[in-house]
Amino acid sequence: MSFNTFGKIFRFTTWGESHGPAIGCVIDGCPPNIPISEKEIQKDMDKRRPGQSKFTTQRKESDKVNILSGLFQGKTTGTPISIIIHNEDKRSRDYETIKNKFRPGHADFTYFKKYGIRDFRGGGRQSARETACRVAAGAVAKIILKKLLGPKFNIIGAVTQLGLMSCDKDNWKNSEIRKNPFFCPDKKSVKSWEKYLLAVRKSGSSCGAIIEIRASGVPVGLGAPIYSKLDSDISAALMSINAVKGVNIGAGMNSAFLSGEENDEIRNKSGKVNFKSNNAGGILGGISSGQNIVASFAVKPTSSILTNRETINKAGKNTKISVKGRHDPCVGIRAVPIGEAMLSCVLLDHYLLNRAQCG
Amino acid sequence: MSFNTFGKIFRFTTWGESHGPAIGCVIDGCPPNIPISEKEIQKDMDKRRPGQSKFTTQRKESDKVNILSGLFQGKTTGTPISIIIHNEDKRSRDYETIKNKFRPGHADFTYFKKYGIRDFRGGGRQSARETACRVAAGAVAKIILKKLLGPKFNIIGAVTQLGLMSCDKDNWKNSEIRKNPFFCPDKKSVKSWEKYLLAVRKSGSSCGAIIEIRASGVPVGLGAPIYSKLDSDISAALMSINAVKGVNIGAGMNSAFLSGEENDEIRNKSGKVNFKSNNAGGILGGISSGQNIVASFAVKPTSSILTNRETINKAGKNTKISVKGRHDPCVGIRAVPIGEAMLSCVLLDHYLLNRAQCG
Amino acid sequence: MSFNTFGKIFRFTTWGESHGPAIGCVIDGCPPNIPISEKEIQKDMDKRRPGQSKFTTQRKESDKVNILSGLFQGKTTGTPISIIIHNEDKRSRDYETIKNKFRPGHADFTYFKKYGIRDFRGGGRQSARETACRVAAGAVAKIILKKLLGPKFNIIGAVTQLGLMSCDKDNWKNSEIRKNPFFCPDKKSVKSWEKYLLAVRKSGSSCGAIIEIRASGVPVGLGAPIYSKLDSDISAALMSINAVKGVNIGAGMNSAFLSGEENDEIRNKSGKVNFKSNNAGGILGGISSGQNIVASFAVKPTSSILTNRETINKAGKNTKISVKGRHDPCVGIRAVPIGEAMLSCVLLDHYLLNRAQCG
Amino acid sequence: MSFNTFGKIFRFTTWGESHGPAIGCVIDGCPPNIPISEKEIQKDMDKRRPGQSKFTTQRKESDKVNILSGLFQGKTTGTPISIIIHNEDKRSRDYETIKNKFRPGHADFTYFKKYGIRDFRGGGRQSARETACRVAAGAVAKIILKKLLGPKFNIIGAVTQLGLMSCDKDNWKNSEIRKNPFFCPDKKSVKSWEKYLLAVRKSGSSCGAIIEIRASGVPVGLGAPIYSKLDSDISAALMSINAVKGVNIGAGMNSAFLSGEENDEIRNKSGKVNFKSNNAGGILGGISSGQNIVASFAVKPTSSILTNRETINKAGKNTKISVKGRHDPCVGIRAVPIGEAMLSCVLLDHYLLNRAQCG
Repeated sequence: MSFNTFGKIFRFTTWGESHGPAIGCVIDGCPPNIPISEKEIQKDMDKRRPGQSKFTTQRKESDKVNILSGLFQGKTTGTPISIIIHNEDKRSRDYETIKNKFRPGHADFTYFKKYGIRDFRGGGRQSARETACRVAAGAVAKIILKKLLGPKFNIIGAVTQLGLMSCDKDNWKNSEIRKNPFFCPDKKSVKSWEKYLLAVRKSGSSCGAIIEIRASGVPVGLGAPIYSKLDSDISAALMSINAVKGVNIGAGMNSAFLSGEENDEIRNKSGKVNFKSNNAGGILGGISSGQNIVASFAVKPTSSILTNRETINKAGKNTKISVKGRHDPCVGIRAVPIGEAMLSCVLLDHYLLNRAQCG
Repeated sequence: MSFNTFGKIFRFTTWGESHGPAIGCVIDGCPPNIPISEKEIQKDMDKRRPGQSKFTTQRKESDKVNILSGLFQGKTTGTPISIIIHNEDKRSRDYETIKNKFRPGHADFTYFKKYGIRDFRGGGRQSARETACRVAAGAVAKIILKKLLGPKFNIIGAVTQLGLMSCDKDNWKNSEIRKNPFFCPDKKSVKSWEKYLLAVRKSGSSCGAIIEIRASGVPVGLGAPIYSKLDSDISAALMSINAVKGVNIGAGMNSAFLSGEENDEIRNKSGKVNFKSNNAGGILGGISSGQNIVASFAVKPTSSILTNRETINKAGKNTKISVKGRHDPCVGIRAVPIGEAMLSCVLLDHYLLNRAQCG
Repeated sequence: MSFNTFGKIFRFTTWGESHGPAIGCVIDGCPPNIPISEKEIQKDMDKRRPGQSKFTTQRKESDKVNILSGLFQGKTTGTPISIIIHNEDKRSRDYETIKNKFRPGHADFTYFKKYGIRDFRGGGRQSARETACRVAAGAVAKIILKKLLGPKFNIIGAVTQLGLMSCDKDNWKNSEIRKNPFFCPDKKSVKSWEKYLLAVRKSGSSCGAIIEIRASGVPVGLGAPIYSKLDSDISAALMSINAVKGVNIGAGMNSAFLSGEENDEIRNKSGKVNFKSNNAGGILGGISSGQNIVASFAVKPTSSILTNRETINKAGKNTKISVKGRHDPCVGIRAVPIGEAMLSCVLLDHYLLNRAQCG
Repeated sequence: MSFNTFGKIFRFTTWGESHGPAIGCVIDGCPPNIPISEKEIQKDMDKRRPGQSKFTTQRKESDKVNILSGLFQGKTTGTPISIIIHNEDKRSRDYETIKNKFRPGHADFTYFKKYGIRDFRGGGRQSARETACRVAAGAVAKIILKKLLGPKFNIIGAVTQLGLMSCDKDNWKNSEIRKNPFFCPDKKSVKSWEKYLLAVRKSGSSCGAIIEIRASGVPVGLGAPIYSKLDSDISAALMSINAVKGVNIGAGMNSAFLSGEENDEIRNKSGKVNFKSNNAGGILGGISSGQNIVASFAVKPTSSILTNRETINKAGKNTKISVKGRHDPCVGIRAVPIGEAMLSCVLLDHYLLNRAQCG
């Protein structure tokens, strides 16, 4: 069971609301004796943090992580790591005007219908603020993976589609991704993306995005068929991120258009296994093949927009709504570190699972 | 943990290999006092069964289900339902020639690397034969859902893309789907699809497909955020099906191209909640909204093809392979009832979960 | 999987070390719309709190609970309730002298051997301080159970054996239990127990105890055979408490001495089901019968005593140890509210589970 | 969740009713490449099998195990092992006379109240026949443990208390246990036990028993605090066996009577860790210490006896019942191999869990 817990052996549980005193996570199943510091985790937090450019919400949060347990003299002890992040910029008054209306595309309606109660302050638990905890847990996972797999292991994500704007994936450069506010891997696309997103924002609208995450240095053998296939767990992980509506592994949905000949051929190249393509995204039969793991996902456009829209209120009456709060014109941008975090957690979990069953 | 078990409260465990004596499943967590019969389950089995047209594998299996436990006087008792399906047409000799080679696109390589042992007879556990068990479990779920939700509940899937051939989804007619060997919902597309697939088969190749599953009559409130979101569990369920590489909920990957205004608006229409569109696929914040649940997934082209392809053998040496066995030119076709089954299981599971937490 | 998580649907995860900045728990799966307050939880915390009499450790902890999430306007929202308790009285220096030795009966040795690292400050995670979190979670469970089951539901525990001193269970009065520092239900035994425990403490030794927990007003039907039997889950719950080594349901170990005729006969008494005895402790076939649930457990004597004892150190060398810290002469006494808490959690969990499967 | 599934990584699911066509289990999470045969499993089955002496039920079952999956060329493949055991001697007519009455001490009443339906044929799912599946799963676990831990690992159980008759545990000889029909480890007690049990049987009554299981050669470090403590999982495992009402680890309930000085002291003896006693039953803080694991449990007297007893019927009316079927005068006797099986499963599960987290 896993309402607010993710993972099988390496497991984290998140808690907290957008406008409560704090949010946090408890990370369980960590291997012992691994050095971990708040400083290292903070680096990942800072990638997701809002208010860093004009293209993300202006909510001001330092997102400072505070480790409350699980370490002794700077090393993991095998006991749960509890991390707390205090909410600093909570302007609940922003939400007074919409507290009785259901924002289209938001979970206001379904939460209220399911639970019979609605925490309207910033979306409460349904807020993307929860994802800060995932980034913290993912940072821990990444540190452990680097220790276990060595320096050849790496994980990096980028935005490859910003609304209607694509980029040239052949120009993907890891080093470019952090140099622009869009996590765009293709230097040449940045300018046009900037112009595009400014226009979207100015119109009071929003746009969707596609994010691609790549993990290299992943050993062959991770993934536990039939119902814990690596791609199955990755898709659950990515689909659990707010506003995600589609997940691809390798060629993904485009696999439909491939022919049988496009299944990745295998070669021995100077004693090493070498695949001639990677349409499978590094996963065969639910098990990692040693190729790069490649997963992508689509984030729908931000629901809270300035445009006046039709909806109903708590009493079921027709009404209109426009949301004046502080929101991202494209929430997909900030999903990059979240996707990296979720993939890191899945990979570590399966590393440990594989160690359990196969030694 | 769930290597071979799917679900949280309504759970099924599958077992068995392609060429062993039998395959089967154990279904746990069934509500008691619900009439279930082998005959009803068999109907769903017959949709998936191979050898029904020239477009599916010629392996001859009656796929007759045999219920060994869990019923008393024709009704569920709340105890596990064990179903066994005997394998009838096992020609292990077909696989002798390829037993030391890894078929590209297949899980031969990864299973062998992970477990250090390979059941080469028809792919062993990695074979799509396992999905017969899912269909049996899904049939049980569907019967229970119909009892719990009443006749307005329905679930139906179709192939909407057959390799390079699309269909007109505006012409979708449930009644057409079973009338052609492709599960095509658009009568007008059937002829061209037939021509296309015959050509694919003749060339010794294969093609992929996209399958769409629709569930109507699903109540609002199913789905348990954050890490058991309904769309998250559906994507895990569908991605666990053999050869699936992409999953969409509603607009899915195309959400990236939408604008904020395309989030589904809500209206009160004669006292009933009415959404003006369904880009969210019936799920908001991981919780069902009462709209139709719409999920689609892509199946990659069959890996076992006649074309000669490059690969390595168990010794790591370069070699070539072509597979002469009895295979489907498009495995995606037979994925329709499997997708229906998996969605049924997820929905029932969440119905029970919601009943647990919310009464 | 559940290293630091307890429960199936109503689940809590605890974190924190004896001498870290804080301890806490995250409670998931709460039904929504139930009023809960820190004040109500605090009442239960105060029963377990150390330093309340000369018979418990003199560590000074106010054990003030602080709810960080999961409530909106005083009611549960169905999202996780995060509770934090700050550690106030951490004198790490007390442990300097023993940090390289393994205390007999303690988990020092096994934690070090398992994890290769030892948080020697007050036992770190192995400390009974963790049980404060269980009491907080149990208080939440109890509040919910009272709401769901009505005022007839009650749960109360007592010490029925203090070392070599028994009490007369026929004199059990709920109202007496809180009136003495031993949670003794039999007024007449209090004086002799006091004299006995003073002698134990004076000698620098410690003693064990037996605690019995009784729950009334539990409906028939809770418990999910075969591997989630109510008694099975209760015994796991109680055995997970620090220093517990035996668990009885009803007649428990004494069942061996009963004859077949002593299986509880059933009568209809003025239209109500009435059992003539309760040797089964209210559970038949793993399912509650509607009788009182009666569970008892034994707590071994405190390991940390003044007496000089033989042990080895981290280097494996023979040495001696005596522990001068602040410890309870009988840790069993403070186990009463913990046992109540664990039983409350199991009962609520099974109430929800039963609601899931049986409606 | 685990209605009919036991374990975390090494997991088995059982299914089947006393009088259905068959019973069986599906064993998941097996390490690959371990030789397993039906013949080896059968040896353990034969220990539990009924009808082997006049002191056990005369139901005739060969309990022949049939492996349907999970092996290839005699070795585990890491996929689920499905085992089926056909029911041979099902005399449903025996139960006709009692089908509307609730047997005191049996689960008839609670199953009916919970599920609203009752499979009265031999108790249906509640029958101890289910335990045959546990023995099969335990046999697999034992084979794997022996492979992983080497020949020093051993697990053996015995009856140490037969109703009012004790034995001298100082005379415990493993080699004696299988030489008498009581699994009595003390040769000198056998005769008096035989006389006693004959008298019990003749009187139409039944008696309880205590079974003790000992595992040697268990490495230090198994067990995952806080909520998967080794003793916690063992107690859940043993308490899940039919008719078990009490579980002790080491000194168990008698821990209450120990003094602090009786916590097991530790010595270095020629370079090896050596405990001076084993009151903790080989488990400290929920983690194995390297000492023998010692667990015992009490089985209540058989409920189905010849004596006429008071009960109610399905209509709630008062009535009387005496059960004429084929029953054991002491079901505890046949619980010995079941206890061994359950302990084997827990130990293997924790071996794998420990390998996951600690490498």
